[in-house]
Amino acid sequence: MDERTASRLDRIRVATLATISADGRPHLVPVVFARDGDELVTAVDGKPKKQKTLARIANISRDPRVTLLAHLYDEEWSKLWWVRVDGTASLEEHGEAFSRALSALRNRYPQYESVDLTGPVIRIAIERATTWDPNPE
Amino acid sequence: MDERTASRLDRIRVATLATISADGRPHLVPVVFARDGDELVTAVDGKPKKQKTLARIANISRDPRVTLLAHLYDEEWSKLWWVRVDGTASLEEHGEAFSRALSALRNRYPQYESVDLTGPVIRIAIERATTWDPNPE
Repeated sequence: MDERTASRLDRIRVATLATISADGRPHLVPVVFARDGDELVTAVDGKPKKQKTLARIANISRDPRVTLLAHLYDEEWSKLWWVRVDGTASLEEHGEAFSRALSALRNRYPQYESVDLTGPVIRIAIERATTWDPNPE
Repeated sequence: MDERTASRLDRIRVATLATISADGRPHLVPVVFARDGDELVTAVDGKPKKQKTLARIANISRDPRVTLLAHLYDEEWSKLWWVRVDGTASLEEHGEAFSRALSALRNRYPQYESVDLTGPVIRIAIERATTWDPNPE
């Protein structure tokens, strides 16, 4: 991940995670996320969920290809930009990398002091990062 | 579309549109959008694009299934919510519905006074709308 992509991701507090449903349709949810070195991590947390096994988890187990989009919206459209990450996801439920991911999330989001953060962790190894802005360098 | 979904969509200025790439991977872009009755519309506009034929347009031509996610982020996580729309997209380049879509977008976004809005229009017929918030009614 280049520095510009990293600094943009660091500025954005929420992104949209897309996984692939069994029928091939994209499944989208907003996620909070953190960087762990060159990878991105997000985790299932204690906010109420309808289903016991989350669709995103089932989808990744079947097909690990994921896409994450982080963007800035501003009513002044010259300020818009986005970063899109295509990657391969893996699920972690224990171990050193799992603990490191939870720490990265807790460090970034003080909200996790009062929201349970049990996992699993979704770790995204980046295959390709694409950035867009209206004023290309 | 129920009233709650409609009023939430009306409050959000930008959403993420997912189409399906040739290799099956979701393709995500942020889009501005408007409601046209029970359908959602978004359009290709004059902001700089890298490719001549946009991936979203090529993808919809091949597979019209799309997903759109609109969400509110707030550092107070009890205020979070999202609306996810699964639908079927069609492309419009002229005609009455096309003109109505452009009007809906121009009415919603004064930015289109200075940004070209040529189309095509992507019209989304909603198959399913899902809403989530941390305090279900």
